Amino acid sequence: MTSPVLPSHGRARPLGLAQVSLTGGFWGSRQTVNATATLAHCESWMERLGWLANFDRVADGATGPDRPGWSFSDSEVYKLLEALAWESARTGDPAAEAAIKRLTARVARAQDPDGYLNTCYGHPGRPPRYSDLESGHELYNTGHLLQAAVARLRTHGEDDLVRVARRAADHVCRTFGPEGRAAICGHPEIEVGLAEFGRALGEPRYIDQARLFLDRRGHGTLKDIPLGRAYFQDDIPIREADVWRGHAVRALYLAAAAVDVAVEHRDDELLRAVERQWERSVARRTYLTGGMGSRHQDEGFGEDWELPPDRAYCETCAGVASIMVSWRLHLATGDVRYTDLIERTLYNVIATSPSADGRAFFYANPLHQRAAGRPADPDEVSPRAEAGARAAWFDVSCCPTNVARTLAGLHAYLATTDDDGLQLHQYAPCEIRAELPGGRPVAVDVETAYPESGTVRVRIAAGSPEPWTLSLRVPAWAAGATLTEGGRTRPVEPGLARVRRAFRAGDEIVLDLPMAPRFTWPDPRIDAVRGCVAVERGPEVLCVESHDLPAAGALDFLVVDAGTAPRDVPGGAVVRGRTPARPDRPWPYPAGPAGDGDGGWFDVPLRPYHAWARRGPASMRIFLPVS
Amino acid sequence: MTSPVLPSHGRARPLGLAQVSLTGGFWGSRQTVNATATLAHCESWMERLGWLANFDRVADGATGPDRPGWSFSDSEVYKLLEALAWESARTGDPAAEAAIKRLTARVARAQDPDGYLNTCYGHPGRPPRYSDLESGHELYNTGHLLQAAVARLRTHGEDDLVRVARRAADHVCRTFGPEGRAAICGHPEIEVGLAEFGRALGEPRYIDQARLFLDRRGHGTLKDIPLGRAYFQDDIPIREADVWRGHAVRALYLAAAAVDVAVEHRDDELLRAVERQWERSVARRTYLTGGMGSRHQDEGFGEDWELPPDRAYCETCAGVASIMVSWRLHLATGDVRYTDLIERTLYNVIATSPSADGRAFFYANPLHQRAAGRPADPDEVSPRAEAGARAAWFDVSCCPTNVARTLAGLHAYLATTDDDGLQLHQYAPCEIRAELPGGRPVAVDVETAYPESGTVRVRIAAGSPEPWTLSLRVPAWAAGATLTEGGRTRPVEPGLARVRRAFRAGDEIVLDLPMAPRFTWPDPRIDAVRGCVAVERGPEVLCVESHDLPAAGALDFLVVDAGTAPRDVPGGAVVRGRTPARPDRPWPYPAGPAGDGDGGWFDVPLRPYHAWARRGPASMRIFLPVS
Repeated sequence: MTSPVLPSHGRARPLGLAQVSLTGGFWGSRQTVNATATLAHCESWMERLGWLANFDRVADGATGPDRPGWSFSDSEVYKLLEALAWESARTGDPAAEAAIKRLTARVARAQDPDGYLNTCYGHPGRPPRYSDLESGHELYNTGHLLQAAVARLRTHGEDDLVRVARRAADHVCRTFGPEGRAAICGHPEIEVGLAEFGRALGEPRYIDQARLFLDRRGHGTLKDIPLGRAYFQDDIPIREADVWRGHAVRALYLAAAAVDVAVEHRDDELLRAVERQWERSVARRTYLTGGMGSRHQDEGFGEDWELPPDRAYCETCAGVASIMVSWRLHLATGDVRYTDLIERTLYNVIATSPSADGRAFFYANPLHQRAAGRPADPDEVSPRAEAGARAAWFDVSCCPTNVARTLAGLHAYLATTDDDGLQLHQYAPCEIRAELPGGRPVAVDVETAYPESGTVRVRIAAGSPEPWTLSLRVPAWAAGATLTEGGRTRPVEPGLARVRRAFRAGDEIVLDLPMAPRFTWPDPRIDAVRGCVAVERGPEVLCVESHDLPAAGALDFLVVDAGTAPRDVPGGAVVRGRTPARPDRPWPYPAGPAGDGDGGWFDVPLRPYHAWARRGPASMRIFLPVS
Repeated sequence: MTSPVLPSHGRARPLGLAQVSLTGGFWGSRQTVNATATLAHCESWMERLGWLANFDRVADGATGPDRPGWSFSDSEVYKLLEALAWESARTGDPAAEAAIKRLTARVARAQDPDGYLNTCYGHPGRPPRYSDLESGHELYNTGHLLQAAVARLRTHGEDDLVRVARRAADHVCRTFGPEGRAAICGHPEIEVGLAEFGRALGEPRYIDQARLFLDRRGHGTLKDIPLGRAYFQDDIPIREADVWRGHAVRALYLAAAAVDVAVEHRDDELLRAVERQWERSVARRTYLTGGMGSRHQDEGFGEDWELPPDRAYCETCAGVASIMVSWRLHLATGDVRYTDLIERTLYNVIATSPSADGRAFFYANPLHQRAAGRPADPDEVSPRAEAGARAAWFDVSCCPTNVARTLAGLHAYLATTDDDGLQLHQYAPCEIRAELPGGRPVAVDVETAYPESGTVRVRIAAGSPEPWTLSLRVPAWAAGATLTEGGRTRPVEPGLARVRRAFRAGDEIVLDLPMAPRFTWPDPRIDAVRGCVAVERGPEVLCVESHDLPAAGALDFLVVDAGTAPRDVPGGAVVRGRTPARPDRPWPYPAGPAGDGDGGWFDVPLRPYHAWARRGPASMRIFLPVS
């Protein structure tokens, strides 16, 4: 079956990618843009910058001290290959297939006879293999190669890419196995790559190697660095940690691997450790958008409650990685809190990153932009953390290919099955054609304009004499949702709303989620947004942009009336606000509180955060001071 | 005359260090600890880490690829030499004099025949001279050598250190002069060093070279870096900039040099540019403590209003540098807003850094510590930005020697003269024995327990038949101050309170500053502390520490009653507060505001921020949420 994650067991089973297809809507259109623009965009930038030619240079024995790109640039090629594999299977697009062959050939030529494959280390003029495990990213690169090979294996079968990956994985097992060097990579990723590659090939030894890497971590196996070993999660063994810390993408890739290993080894202690870390991190270290990573300095989690909106890092890749963790936890436990967080992260991190044309991206996703950014030059490489404008490519360019592989396989996350039926988690126009154990057909078509509308219409496409259960996720925010079936409408609570019967073709079940915009209040311990409210509408976090305010700089002074509920308007919401003039002082810490000043009330429009800065550079805020 | 800064003209003249001495009190005791503990502490760490031996290795031709310390470790030796020079002159301590000779001898041996002096570059096994101007710090090191030589020249006269510095300065002028390489150093400091060295030697060509460096800056003279050229102020010419940006210490050392050059070249446009930058940076980018630098990532200023208390960097060295700028601006303009800021920075940044024993230091000075730090091992080098505990030494250890040189020469900042009299700026027990033009003696003794008490008693120590004006700075916060002379008490406004007459020996003038603790409210645009108040008492910012709260974690929940004025208590203040229990939620963004919860009112003690963490690791906050 074709899916990015296929555990051998669990409370929920993923659908195969051939069993579900997006038929338009919010995500279908993004998947199309990804296919028609982003994939070629990524390949062309990597060609232009020499990241692809790095493979040729290794093959041609032409390496030397100068090498374009960071030590992890190989991984971008592999992430693009993974995206192309999903895309080729989704549409059969010959261009995607040709790109896979083209890239695979160049990658394959660079592999050493013993399976080692890396363009930065281990060749003439370059530092030796595994000479800088703290920051060299060699095993990280290999992990992404394995994930690409998994995609190819499951959608196409064994080919050159899979064979290259197998040799690379075997090399890793020989070098770092139980008899080998007791080391780990500074950036987790090999673990999640090995675990899934082991699943895909039915080779437990790869999963065992992933476990070995996991167990070595947290014991000071890596050298200490100024940021401390928490940066790469080598400070505390993963079973003992209570919360995610350090570099967010590292922490989350590691957690994803831990779930895989826990499931395959039926290691409930390890699974429970990750669940515990998820719980505290979501309760205290996660932004309203689902974004993770509070600090620019180390691209990392901060302390509990350290969630500044302006300096939020919320790296797009951390959003991808958070979805990877939550999806695995959901498959293991069936708990919808995980698919709730996936929805939040999809709409407010993943959807925020790419531009409408799929050729520019946010790397960081702050919740407050004080000074409008400058438009990025579409022909230039940007520093990674400039958040004022989406950029065509970055010096560290992990996010575009991560978005690409996520969107190409996005339909994987819509639904699950279990022995008794189908669970719909994310609402999008789609067709699902699956089977339950025993051959019971489960075929449904979903029609919805979600999240513009809260009405989700599920039509049974093929009847079955055997009863089964259709479950619909009611998000935690959706108090007041209703379900209509057979002419009867009933209230449904957040969680899973279930309908069990022998469905007939044409049966319709309609979920209505309340889409009135609503105020959201941060926990008082989140100091950085004290005295503020946010506005959400369905799964979308809304924001105010300077474009929609009467004067430049007005966003600095905006206060809103939290006593008047936000009003629903097409494309967003409206709240009552004022922009009282406040004096400029030579010293900004006066002896008395600022009054509310003058300035009349007016309607302040809010729009989805994911669309911010699409109309050009703007200042922006999600959390609005309460008058 | 002996003083760190001696402009050729200006509205105010510094006193010579021989004309003023601290006789105890808050700063006198710190100066003594600095002399008896910190200076030897710094030398011993630099010996232990090999930073001193780096000079020997150059002299012995024993350099190689391995070299302990960062490229700027030489500068720590020079800053220590500067401190020792002030200290030797202050007390005549033979130990200080011996240390100067000892260190000078080792430094001098490492100088190349052409004057080049650097232990990191330009010798066998090391990168070539000036091969990395962006981050190599070579000219930065030389700048500190020149400042040390200025101290030695003014307190002692020409000696080996001065001769070494002269050769180094001449080398710099030859290499980077009008006919030389049109380059600058990534870290400003050479400019301020050259300017004062030129003043001290009466050699305008050094000042001209400083000007040349200043004028080259801001035109993309340095290579671009991921943080952008604003990091080292090479983004905008200094005359055109409106605000400080980028790395705070860099920005401030550069501004200090710009004032020096502006004064010596009578360049009012340049002086006004720095004043304008000071104004906006103080109004929008400065912490209540006077601390500057909002970001860890680049140790830099953030955007306007970006002043997070928890991630405040407020590097101790930026406090030193801010005082350098404000002092120069004050000497040029006579404006007391500059000495107001110096007072704030002295009490809340400089005094915060060293431990009571002078053997441990804060590098960063945040205004909010969420998790209590761990005590630093007095025998270990700490990462620089760990702020939970003062550390004996740092990997990047610029702050201890910067504190040392500032405290050793602190009496320089107490007072100024002009043609008409004496201006007292900082209140401390001291003796001043100066002369006005025409030989009029100005001799006063100051007695005060400031800042514990607000009473400052100025006694005339020598009468004069000629009238002169005694001016006392009334800080901007001191509404309600009074001045008593000849039995008459009158209110005085913030600014300078003046008494003009022919003083007789024994005359007493008493300034009474109101020391009742007071609430301070941040500008509403400082988003990170919305809904909070701070408490100040005189020049001291106060804070709440977890030591003084009934339960661990209570600081997370503390709210205070801003309707009840803070009460004065010995050693600080008390406010009325509560710690309402708040529920832990799985998702910290609920649909309604947090209530005030239960929990009775109690007295919350506050203490001076500069003393925080002296009783052991603690959580701490300055800005307190209002109930």
